[in-house]
Amino acid sequence: MSEPLTAADAEPLAQAFAALADPVRLRLFNLVAQAGEVCSCDLQEPLQKSQPTVSHHTRVLADAGLITGEKRGRWVWWSVVPERLQELRASLTP
Amino acid sequence: MSEPLTAADAEPLAQAFAALADPVRLRLFNLVAQAGEVCSCDLQEPLQKSQPTVSHHTRVLADAGLITGEKRGRWVWWSVVPERLQELRASLTP
Repeated sequence: MSEPLTAADAEPLAQAFAALADPVRLRLFNLVAQAGEVCSCDLQEPLQKSQPTVSHHTRVLADAGLITGEKRGRWVWWSVVPERLQELRASLTP
Repeated sequence: MSEPLTAADAEPLAQAFAALADPVRLRLFNLVAQAGEVCSCDLQEPLQKSQPTVSHHTRVLADAGLITGEKRGRWVWWSVVPERLQELRASLTP
C-alpha cells in the first residue's frame, strides 16, 4: 500500500485481526482456508472442541468477514472470503 | 501452508495478530512498514498521539516480534521484521 492507512480503514482491519488473535480460532480459520470449503461437522475432530465451541468461533470469524457460510441440510459449509484475506495480506506487506 | 496449523504454532501467530488488533497500533505498524525505517520522533504527528502512547504501542509490536528497534542518540528507529510478516501472510493464504 502506498497511502498511509487511515483511521477509518484501520478500524475494520483491526477487527479482523482481533478475530484471528485466538489460537483455536486461528487454527479453525486455517482449516477452512486449506480445505477451500469445509463442513462444520468436520471441524470438531481436528480442533478437539465441542460443537458449541466450534459454532462460537465460526460466528466470530464470519462476523469479522473472514469466512462465509452456506447452510445445506443440518450443517453449514464454510469457506474463506478471498477479498478480505487479500486486504489483510496487503496491510502486512512492507 | 500444506500442513494444518498446530496448537504450538498457532500460539505465537495469534499473539502477533492480537498486537495488530488495535486501530492505532495497526496504523503505527503500517507507517513503519511503509517507511522501511522510521524514527519514533516521526510517529507522533501522523498518529496524533502523545509520545508515551506511541512508546506503549511500539513496545507491544516489538514484544510480538513484528518490529525491531535500534537506539540512536535519544530516539529509537523502528523497522519491520520481514520473516515475521511472511509467517503472518502465509497463515492468511488459502
